[in-house]
Amino acid sequence: MKSNITKPVLLLDEKKVRRNVQRMKERAQEAGSVLRPHFKTHQSHTVGEWCREEGIEGITVSSVGMAVYFASAGWKDILIAFPVNIRELAVIKDLSAQLDRLILLVEHKDTVSILASSGIRVDVVVEIDTGSKRTGLWYSDKEGIESLVGQIEATENLSLAGVYSHAGHTYRSRGIEEVTATGGEALSRLEGVGRMLNRELPVYFGDTPYASIGTDLEKVTVMTPGNFVYYDTMQIAIGACGYDDIAVCLACPVVSLKADRNEIAVYAGAVHLSKDKIEDDTFGAIVRITETGWTEPLSGCYVRAISQEHGLVHISDEYIDQWKIGDLLGILPVHSCLTAEAMGEYETITGKVIDHFQKHKNKGR
Amino acid sequence: MKSNITKPVLLLDEKKVRRNVQRMKERAQEAGSVLRPHFKTHQSHTVGEWCREEGIEGITVSSVGMAVYFASAGWKDILIAFPVNIRELAVIKDLSAQLDRLILLVEHKDTVSILASSGIRVDVVVEIDTGSKRTGLWYSDKEGIESLVGQIEATENLSLAGVYSHAGHTYRSRGIEEVTATGGEALSRLEGVGRMLNRELPVYFGDTPYASIGTDLEKVTVMTPGNFVYYDTMQIAIGACGYDDIAVCLACPVVSLKADRNEIAVYAGAVHLSKDKIEDDTFGAIVRITETGWTEPLSGCYVRAISQEHGLVHISDEYIDQWKIGDLLGILPVHSCLTAEAMGEYETITGKVIDHFQKHKNKGR
Repeated sequence: MKSNITKPVLLLDEKKVRRNVQRMKERAQEAGSVLRPHFKTHQSHTVGEWCREEGIEGITVSSVGMAVYFASAGWKDILIAFPVNIRELAVIKDLSAQLDRLILLVEHKDTVSILASSGIRVDVVVEIDTGSKRTGLWYSDKEGIESLVGQIEATENLSLAGVYSHAGHTYRSRGIEEVTATGGEALSRLEGVGRMLNRELPVYFGDTPYASIGTDLEKVTVMTPGNFVYYDTMQIAIGACGYDDIAVCLACPVVSLKADRNEIAVYAGAVHLSKDKIEDDTFGAIVRITETGWTEPLSGCYVRAISQEHGLVHISDEYIDQWKIGDLLGILPVHSCLTAEAMGEYETITGKVIDHFQKHKNKGR
Repeated sequence: MKSNITKPVLLLDEKKVRRNVQRMKERAQEAGSVLRPHFKTHQSHTVGEWCREEGIEGITVSSVGMAVYFASAGWKDILIAFPVNIRELAVIKDLSAQLDRLILLVEHKDTVSILASSGIRVDVVVEIDTGSKRTGLWYSDKEGIESLVGQIEATENLSLAGVYSHAGHTYRSRGIEEVTATGGEALSRLEGVGRMLNRELPVYFGDTPYASIGTDLEKVTVMTPGNFVYYDTMQIAIGACGYDDIAVCLACPVVSLKADRNEIAVYAGAVHLSKDKIEDDTFGAIVRITETGWTEPLSGCYVRAISQEHGLVHISDEYIDQWKIGDLLGILPVHSCLTAEAMGEYETITGKVIDHFQKHKNKGR
């Protein structure tokens, strides 16, 4: 494998992906909920097929374009977990005709009015803000939620499928206790909406940290984590996975050695890794690339800085003399979703090139 | 224009691009240096053609793949301003045969040895670190630089073309005085290398801040700025341009309104803008999209936070009631190079779709 790699390549370990999916599916089953994984992480027909082979039927995506991409691979039950962009109604209409089930996310009355006028027959979930302060109606805004739910129910072409929340603020938690507390609070808030409105409302929930290690999953009707297919060093920092669960690794050529300052420069920058980082300024952990994958992380080594094409890697004394120009170094990314998006394709550790939506999408129109 | 836009679109103002190129070319001419713009910012055949029409002959790129992409558009004189990645020697060899002039960047003896063994006939510039601590030989490392220069001159197939430095640390400067001081120091260090070695060495230099507002450009033989074709709000913060010079703007649909917290959510996230930001946490300035381009920035409005597909925009009291669901909002990006890379295409303000290397490259192999 190694000798064929000339440029940064995002390596993908199929076995780890399948194991991650199996494990999450078991967690969902044990909790009596259904796993509807968020495909925005892998954005790949091939990885989608692996998920299908592991028993996944319904999926979640983050854009209309991504829904079209997966519909073209035969997926028939898709939730677009992003507030409806009414400028894409024409495509949404086509999708709703093509799929067995299309679920849209709504959180504003004007959007619901426009959907009502469109006549598009579609399921909707109401987005609830359970603490992340991104989009959604605030969980305790009884009047606002009741009003939107009433508006949906008064609309002949819209069917209310439940309430949805992405508790993105669990990403600021560290360790099982904190994740359980933060995610558990968000889940209680979401589940509480049905009680507040005095009605049964299916609960769509499940960021990767909470879905991986949270404890109250029986409250969840539909679990929608995405990152867990690959995990990354952010999830390590959160405590949601182990290094052996990380299924992607950026292989990159060494282009400069600066032993005097414990540093190596690699061909791998923001256009490959993305610029996400963990608070303490780490842009990724360092491994060795092997013929069959990659090793455990090298202790004391990390990506210190990145620019457009350069990565600057701090190497501890123990390892500094073990690298030469042209070697391949492996980076476990901080945020695998954005690294996959930046790379736009994968290569499995058995040498097969795998597609990614990024190369197919036409963002412009 | 506006009515056709359904998704995030990176708008491009050709007139501003041409004016930026003309102005920089005049600055170079006045200083007696040659402008060899860094095409990593636009990465576009079409924008490259505009540069050619403004009199540009030699160009700078940041990867072998990008050199191949521009060679395929007829460019014959290319500097790859990134330490040679010896894993790509086969492609480099093809390029050197195809171009009138290929210039490579070297900064390590092992790389030079490998280039020597390859027999590839090519020009090289020695990369000097003038303070950015990324790659390159430290400017005062007389022994190291002398040794590498000697090694190059002893190699029959390599021709020494000069010394190169990217003073990336000018990006931490604010205002003409600081930029002039930081960039001027870096330029003096680079120019001093020739004196230290007691020989004439052409000076390749010119990050956008210094090239735009620096004062000692007569010391520069070849100017290699890139960002100036588009500029961005980072360059505004540095003091290197005015808002009217910014030639790209991300048009994005409004998907949520949160007037109570002075916020709008737009369909535009990390996969569109990239995650670069200015220290005070701004991810971009806000404008209105018009039929012929975009307005000046709206005061007190800025992108507060982004996730994969969401942008959260702070809107000042003055403007908060002027937006509705489905409107188009414009974002002037913090780092136009990375926004262009993330978007992978442009649309001119006259409605023409323009290519970007990102959609053509095969990063994997």
